[in-house]
Amino acid sequence: MIHAKNVFYAQSGGVTAVINASACGVIETAKNYPVIGKIYAGINGITGALNEELIDTSQEDPQTIAALRHTPGGAFGSCRYKLKKFEEDSRDYYKLIEVFKNHNIGYFFYNGGGDSQDTILKISQVTKKIGYPLTCIGIPKTIDNDLAHTDNSPGFGSAAKYVATSIREAGLDIASMCSTSTKVFVMEVMGRHAGWLAAAAGLAAEDKAHAPHIILFPEVHFNQEKFLHKVSECIKKYGFCAIVASEGLRTDTGEFLVNSSVKDAFGNTQLGGIAPTIAALIKHNLNYKYHWAVVDYLQRSARHIASATDVEQAYALGKAAVDRAILKENDIMLTINRLADEPYRWEIGSIPLADVANIEKKMPADFITADGYGITETCRRYLSPLIQGEDHPPYINGLPHYVRLKNIMVEKKLVPI
Amino acid sequence: MIHAKNVFYAQSGGVTAVINASACGVIETAKNYPVIGKIYAGINGITGALNEELIDTSQEDPQTIAALRHTPGGAFGSCRYKLKKFEEDSRDYYKLIEVFKNHNIGYFFYNGGGDSQDTILKISQVTKKIGYPLTCIGIPKTIDNDLAHTDNSPGFGSAAKYVATSIREAGLDIASMCSTSTKVFVMEVMGRHAGWLAAAAGLAAEDKAHAPHIILFPEVHFNQEKFLHKVSECIKKYGFCAIVASEGLRTDTGEFLVNSSVKDAFGNTQLGGIAPTIAALIKHNLNYKYHWAVVDYLQRSARHIASATDVEQAYALGKAAVDRAILKENDIMLTINRLADEPYRWEIGSIPLADVANIEKKMPADFITADGYGITETCRRYLSPLIQGEDHPPYINGLPHYVRLKNIMVEKKLVPI
Repeated sequence: MIHAKNVFYAQSGGVTAVINASACGVIETAKNYPVIGKIYAGINGITGALNEELIDTSQEDPQTIAALRHTPGGAFGSCRYKLKKFEEDSRDYYKLIEVFKNHNIGYFFYNGGGDSQDTILKISQVTKKIGYPLTCIGIPKTIDNDLAHTDNSPGFGSAAKYVATSIREAGLDIASMCSTSTKVFVMEVMGRHAGWLAAAAGLAAEDKAHAPHIILFPEVHFNQEKFLHKVSECIKKYGFCAIVASEGLRTDTGEFLVNSSVKDAFGNTQLGGIAPTIAALIKHNLNYKYHWAVVDYLQRSARHIASATDVEQAYALGKAAVDRAILKENDIMLTINRLADEPYRWEIGSIPLADVANIEKKMPADFITADGYGITETCRRYLSPLIQGEDHPPYINGLPHYVRLKNIMVEKKLVPI
Repeated sequence: MIHAKNVFYAQSGGVTAVINASACGVIETAKNYPVIGKIYAGINGITGALNEELIDTSQEDPQTIAALRHTPGGAFGSCRYKLKKFEEDSRDYYKLIEVFKNHNIGYFFYNGGGDSQDTILKISQVTKKIGYPLTCIGIPKTIDNDLAHTDNSPGFGSAAKYVATSIREAGLDIASMCSTSTKVFVMEVMGRHAGWLAAAAGLAAEDKAHAPHIILFPEVHFNQEKFLHKVSECIKKYGFCAIVASEGLRTDTGEFLVNSSVKDAFGNTQLGGIAPTIAALIKHNLNYKYHWAVVDYLQRSARHIASATDVEQAYALGKAAVDRAILKENDIMLTINRLADEPYRWEIGSIPLADVANIEKKMPADFITADGYGITETCRRYLSPLIQGEDHPPYINGLPHYVRLKNIMVEKKLVPI
C-alpha cells in the first residue's frame, strides 16, 4: 500500500504573466503520481499555510487548471511575508509544521524570487531540525531577472517582450509626429536594482535610428550633462529621441534619482516616476516637447504578449519540481541552464537551497555599450532567445479570456482560535 | 484617351495603430483605376504639399504597401499644422495649388481628426473659388473617438482593446497581491475632452468585483470626498481598488485636475500625470499602498493588440475614399454608420465637409452609471463591437514585424527657393 503524501504549492512576491503556468505544471504533473495525494495551494503564499488556508485544487475543473497556462497574475494569491529567523521567533515554524502535519503535507513547492527562496531554505532547515519529513523545492520566478544561479527567471521573457514591443510601437508613433510635435519620449520600466528589463527594450532597435536611442540603466550612474548632450545629438540626427529609463536609476552619489528630486502634490517624496523626472529635466534644459509613459504592473501582467519560450519554461519548471520530488531530490531550487544561444537550447538544473545566495544579479559590464546608453551584441545574444515565440491567449468578446479559480478552502483541522 | 490625374494622400494629427491600414486601402485601391496616375503621399501631412515634399508610393514594393495594414504610426509622417483662413493669409493656399498643379494632383485624400477635416474643407472651398479642380475627401481617424457625425473613428477600437486588456491584466495582478501589498492601482488613459477610452476600460470588468472598479471621466466633475469614499468601499468589498482615470479629468470648477495641483521637479506645472495625482491623493487621505501607470503613446500605437474590426474599417475607409472619388463624389468626409449592435453591422456613409462641425463628441449621459464611476449596458452595447476580433501582426525574432518605407521623394518642379 502506498502512503500518499499531499502537496503544498504557493506563490510568492510580485506575480508575473507566467507564474500560473508553473502552477499548472505542478498540478497537472502531480495528479498523475499515485504517491501524491491531494494538491493544495496556499491562499496568498506562505501566509496560506500559516493561517491554515489551503485550497483544494482538485475541486477545479481540469480545463480551468489547463487555462492557468495562459492566465496572468497569481491564481491563489501571493504575498510579501518574511519569516523571522527560527532562533529569533520560532512561532511561525511550529504553526506551519502543525498545519502541514494535520494536512499530511509531504511536498512543499514554493514559487518565487530571491526572498522566497530564502523562506523555503529556512523552512527546509527547521523541519529537518524538528524532524518533520518534508521535500522542499523552490521554483524560480521574477520579471526583474535578478535571481542568481539561473540563466534567467520565468516572467522575465514575457515582460521583456512587452517592453521591447511597446517601445518599438511608440517609436514609430513619435517618428511620425516629430517634425511638428513631440520630440522626446521617455518610457519607464521596472528593475529597482538591475537593468535587465531596460536592456530588453534595446531589442526593439534594429538600427541606431530606431527607438530606443538611449537606455538608462541602474548599473550606470546618471550624468546629467552627458545625458542632455546625447539627447540633443539624437534629435539632430534622427529628429526625435526615445528613452527607456529604469525605475532604479541612480545619481552620481548612488541615490535613487527619483527620490532626490520629485515631490508629489502633498510634498511627499514620490514613489516611482523616473519618466516624468527625466522628461521634465529635458524640457527644462533643452525645451523640447515631450511625452512619457510608466508601464508599471502592465509589464509584468501582459500575458497577451507573452513569450512562448517563457511560458514553456515556466510550465516545465513546475513539472520538474514534481518529477524531481518523486525522484527523492530535496532542498533545491530549480534553475534554467543555457546550453546554446543559437539555436537556443536549455535544460533544467538545480542548486542546493543552502547555496542560493539572496543577491541581485546585475547586468554584466560587457552587456552595456561603452557610452553607457545601449546594449552590446553579447547582451542581445543573451536576451533574444528569451522573447522568442508567441503564445496568444484565447479571446472571448474581443478580450483575452483569463480564468478565475473557485479556490475552495479545505476544512480547517487545527483548534479554532 | 484617359487624362489620368494623380492622388495626394496625407496623414494628419495624432497617429494611430491603424492609420496606415487606411493608407494601404487608398494605395491598393487607387492603383487599379486607369484614371488615376501616380499616388503621392505627403511627407508630414499637409506640410508635405506646402513644401513640395511628395513621396512616390509606386517606388515601394507592393508587399511593403500591404504590410502597412499591420504597421502602427504614420508611415509618411504626420503633422499638427493649422491653415489660416484664406481671408487672413492666402499664401499657403496659392503655394499648395501651385504644387498640386505642377504634380497634376486631381484627388486629395486627407486622413485625420476634427482639425484635419477643417483643413480639407478650407482647401476644398479655396480651390473651388480659385478654379482649381480637385476632388476632396476626408478619411476620419482618432483614438479619442470624439469626432462627430461618424459612429466611431478608426484607431479608437484598437486603443480601446488595448486599455481594456491592460486593466484586466493589471487587475489580476493586484488581486493577487492586495492582501499584503498594493491595494490601489491607477491607470491613466488619453482623452482630453471626452471619456471614450476611459469608458472602454470598463469592458474589462465582467463583474463588480473585477477591475476597473472606478472610472474617472472628463464628463463627470471630480468630487474628492465622494471619490475617496468609493475607494474605501471598494477595498473593503474586494480587497483592492483599480481605477482608470482620463487625462482630461476636471475639478468642480471645470479646470483640469492635474493642472491645478502638480508641479514638476522644477516647479513647472506638469503636463499629464493624473494617475500619480490621484494615487497621491489616496495615499495622503487613506494611506493605502499604491501603484500607477500612464500608458500615453503606447495605447495609440499598440498594433500588436489591434481590433480586427478597427483594422477592417480603417482599410475600408481608405478604399472607399478612392472608390467614391471615381464615382465623382466630392467635398465629403466619410463616416462609419452603424446598422446593428448585435450581430454588429456597419456601412460606410458620408457627410458634406461643409456640415462637419469641428466639435468634440462627448459620452452621452446614459453611457455613464448614476454614480458617475462606471459604464452602463447601453455603453457596453455601443463599445463592444468595436474591439472584436484579433489581427495579430507577423512576428520576426520575437517582436512584431513592422515595415518602414523608403519614402522616395518626387523631383521638385517649383523654382527652388
